[in-house]
Amino acid sequence: MSATRVLTGITTSGTPHLGNYAGAIRPAVAASRRPGVESFYFLADYHALIKTADPARVQRSTLEIAASWLACGLDPDKVWFYRQSDIPEIPELTWLLTCVAGKGILNRAHAYKAAVDRNRELGEDDDAGVTAGLFMYPVLMAADILMFKAHSVPVGRDQIQHIEMARDFGARFNHLYGEHFVLPEAAIEENVATLPGLDGRKMSKSYDNTIPLFAPRDELRKLVFSILTDSRMPGEPKSTEGSALFQLYQAFATPAQASEFAAAFAAGIGWGEAKQALFELLDAELAPLREKYEALMARPDHIEAVLRAGAEKARAIATPLMLELRRAVGLRDLREQAGGKKAAKAKAALPVFKQYREKDGRFHFKLVDAYGRELLASEGFASPREAGELISELKRSGPEAFQARMQHLTLAEGIAPDDVVAALAAFAEEGA
Amino acid sequence: MSATRVLTGITTSGTPHLGNYAGAIRPAVAASRRPGVESFYFLADYHALIKTADPARVQRSTLEIAASWLACGLDPDKVWFYRQSDIPEIPELTWLLTCVAGKGILNRAHAYKAAVDRNRELGEDDDAGVTAGLFMYPVLMAADILMFKAHSVPVGRDQIQHIEMARDFGARFNHLYGEHFVLPEAAIEENVATLPGLDGRKMSKSYDNTIPLFAPRDELRKLVFSILTDSRMPGEPKSTEGSALFQLYQAFATPAQASEFAAAFAAGIGWGEAKQALFELLDAELAPLREKYEALMARPDHIEAVLRAGAEKARAIATPLMLELRRAVGLRDLREQAGGKKAAKAKAALPVFKQYREKDGRFHFKLVDAYGRELLASEGFASPREAGELISELKRSGPEAFQARMQHLTLAEGIAPDDVVAALAAFAEEGA
Repeated sequence: MSATRVLTGITTSGTPHLGNYAGAIRPAVAASRRPGVESFYFLADYHALIKTADPARVQRSTLEIAASWLACGLDPDKVWFYRQSDIPEIPELTWLLTCVAGKGILNRAHAYKAAVDRNRELGEDDDAGVTAGLFMYPVLMAADILMFKAHSVPVGRDQIQHIEMARDFGARFNHLYGEHFVLPEAAIEENVATLPGLDGRKMSKSYDNTIPLFAPRDELRKLVFSILTDSRMPGEPKSTEGSALFQLYQAFATPAQASEFAAAFAAGIGWGEAKQALFELLDAELAPLREKYEALMARPDHIEAVLRAGAEKARAIATPLMLELRRAVGLRDLREQAGGKKAAKAKAALPVFKQYREKDGRFHFKLVDAYGRELLASEGFASPREAGELISELKRSGPEAFQARMQHLTLAEGIAPDDVVAALAAFAEEGA
Repeated sequence: MSATRVLTGITTSGTPHLGNYAGAIRPAVAASRRPGVESFYFLADYHALIKTADPARVQRSTLEIAASWLACGLDPDKVWFYRQSDIPEIPELTWLLTCVAGKGILNRAHAYKAAVDRNRELGEDDDAGVTAGLFMYPVLMAADILMFKAHSVPVGRDQIQHIEMARDFGARFNHLYGEHFVLPEAAIEENVATLPGLDGRKMSKSYDNTIPLFAPRDELRKLVFSILTDSRMPGEPKSTEGSALFQLYQAFATPAQASEFAAAFAAGIGWGEAKQALFELLDAELAPLREKYEALMARPDHIEAVLRAGAEKARAIATPLMLELRRAVGLRDLREQAGGKKAAKAKAALPVFKQYREKDGRFHFKLVDAYGRELLASEGFASPREAGELISELKRSGPEAFQARMQHLTLAEGIAPDDVVAALAAFAEEGA
C-alpha cells in the first residue's frame, strides 16, 4: 500500500462552530484532496455517549456535523466518510484490545487524571462520577485507528498520548498474536488555527462563546457585533495584539487583507466598522457553504444514504480484518479445527473456481464450494489472464488476498466472509 | 412474558472435567427440562480472551465444551445455546454499558482486587500485569445478562457481586434512557456439588488435579486409581469423612449405593477394590455420554452448524433489542430526525400493510413502505383475525411489537430491522 492513510474522528456531541471550521474542517477538506493520501473521516458517535446522555443531542449533532463536512466540500466518493456506530467491528475490536491493554497505562490518561484531580480538589472519592466510558476512551480510540491501519492521525499536542496508547495496544496485540496492525504516528498540528471566541478566550462550547458555523446571516451579524472589544473610540489607534476581532479576521483573510485590516486598526477604525468588515468577510466565505448546508439539512434521507454508503466502503476494510483478528485470537470457525485427521477429507473436498465470459465480453469467475454452493463472484476483467491472476492469489494467500481484493469480489447471497475464508483455507492446506 | 429466563455462561478456556459435570453441566441440563423456564447457555469466548492468549486453546475448548453439553443432553431446539462471539450485539452493548458504568464500582470487583492484592504482596505496582480485560469483565458480563433480559443467573456466592453490578449498570441505563432492561437476580447455588480432585483439594484446572469428563476409559481408570488415599490396608476400617474417593462416589451414586459404599468402608474394603468400584460407577454413567461426545467431536461441522443456528435464535432477541437501545441513546437513523416540520410529510407517506391468502389457505400480510418497497412478510395465520391482531399491535406499539413478535415475521431481502422500525414509527406518529 503506497498511499498514506490519515484518520480523523469528530465527536458528535455539539454543533460545529467557526473554531471547528478553521481548526479542523477547512484544513482536513484541503488535505483530503492531496494526492497519495487516503483520508478517513468518521462521526464518532460512540465517543459522544461518553460526553452526553442526551439522545436528541447526539442525533442532531450527527446530522449537523455530517451536513457541515459535506457542505464544506468533503467528497464522500474520494474519502472514507462514515459513522462509527455503523461499523459493528469497532466495538468488537475494542473488546479484543481491552484484553491486551494494560490497565496501568489507562490510569495515566490525561482526561481520566484530570477528572481524578477535580474530585480530589472537591474532597471527593477519586472516581466519583467517573464512568468507565471516560476511563476506556483510549481503547475505543485505538480500535478506531487500528481497524483501518491508519498511518497518521492529526492531533493537537494534548492528544499525542492517545496515539501512543493506540501504538502500545497495537504492538501488544501484534506481539501476542502476530503482525496484524500498523502502528500509527501522531501528526502534530503545530500551526492549527485556534480561534478566539466572543469573549476573547479560545472558542469552545464549554465557554459558551462560540459562533455556530452555519448560523443564519442575521444571527452571524448579531454574534460578530457582540464580540468583546475595548472601549477605544473611533479615531483612536487600536491594537491588533490580543484582539479577538483581529484574530478572527486574520483566520479568514488573505495576507494582504490582513495587513490592510491591521493598518485600519492603527489608523483608528471604529469598532462598529471593524465588526462590519469581519461580518462581511465571514459571510463571503460562509454564505455559499451555508446554502449547501441548509439544502443538506433539509434532506436527512440523503445524508443517511451517504453515511450508509460510507459504512459499506469502510466495512470492506473492517470486515475482513476483523475476521483475520478473530482467527488470530482463537474465535474460529470450528470446521477449521479439524486439522490433522480431517486434512485428507478437506483435500478431497476442495472448492472450485469456475471461469466464464459474460455477454459484455468481460471475464469473470465464481468460487463454488465442494457441495456446489456458490460462495462469491468476481467483477468482470478485461482479460482471462487478469482473472487468473486473482484466482492464483486467492489460492495462494487465501484470507489476506480476499481482504486485499474485496473490492473486486461479491459474496453470494447468504454467504458470510468466514465461509469464504474457510473455503480458501482448504487451498492453503492443499499447497502446504 | 410468563417464562423465567435463566442464563449461564461457560468460559471457553479449558477442557470440561468431572467437577464441571457434577457442579454445572448435569444440574443445568436437568434444569433446562423444567417447564416454565427459558434457558440460555452460551460459550463465553470473549471472556476466555481475558484468561488466555492461546488461540488454539480457545478454539479447542469451544469445540470440547459445545460437544460436552450436547453429549450430556442439552437440546438446542428447546434452549438458547450459542457462542458469545457470534452475537455482535454483545460487544456493542458492552460499550453502551461502559458509558454508564461507574468506574468506582469496578474498582471494587473481587477478581480485580485480588490481582491488586497479589501485586502489593509482591511489592509491585497495583496494576502490574493487570489488563483492562480483567478490570472490565463485569461490564461484559452485564451485557451478556441484560441483552437477553435474563431474570435469574445461577452463580456461586463469589459471583453474587457481578450480578449486583449488572443490576446497577442496567438500572443506571434505565434511569438515563427509559426502562429497557430487566434487572437480574442471582440464583445462589448453595448445594452445588463441589468435587474433590485427585489430591483431595477442590477439583480445579488451576490445581492440576482434574479428571477430564471424557477421558478415554483406560485413562479414566488410571486417573481413578491415582486418587490419593491414606495407607490403611485391606481389612482395616476406613473413614468416609474427608475421603476424596468416597465423595466422588457419592456424587454419582444413588443414596442406597452411597450407604452401601459407606458400609464397605467401615467393613475395611481395600483401596484397590474401592477404586475399581468408583471407576465402574463413573464409567457406567459416562460411557454412553462419552460415545456421543466422541461422535460429536468427529463432526465439528455439525457443532458449528448447531452454534450458528443458536446464534440466529439468540439474535432474534438481541438484534431488535439493540436497535431499541441504539435509538434510546441517540444512535438513530437520521431520517427519523425530521420530526416537527417533516411530520406532515411522514403522515402523507405512511407505509401500508397488505393482507393476502396463500394457496395453502393461510392468511399472511406484508408491510410495504410508501415507495412500494416490501419491508417484511408475516408467517401464515389460521385466520384473518390473527393476522389482523398482529398488524394492529405493530401499528400501535411499533418497535416493541416488532421485537416481541419477530419469530412470526421475516425481513424482506436487503431490509434492515431499523428500516422496519422507521416505517412503524410513522404509524406511532400518526396515532399521536
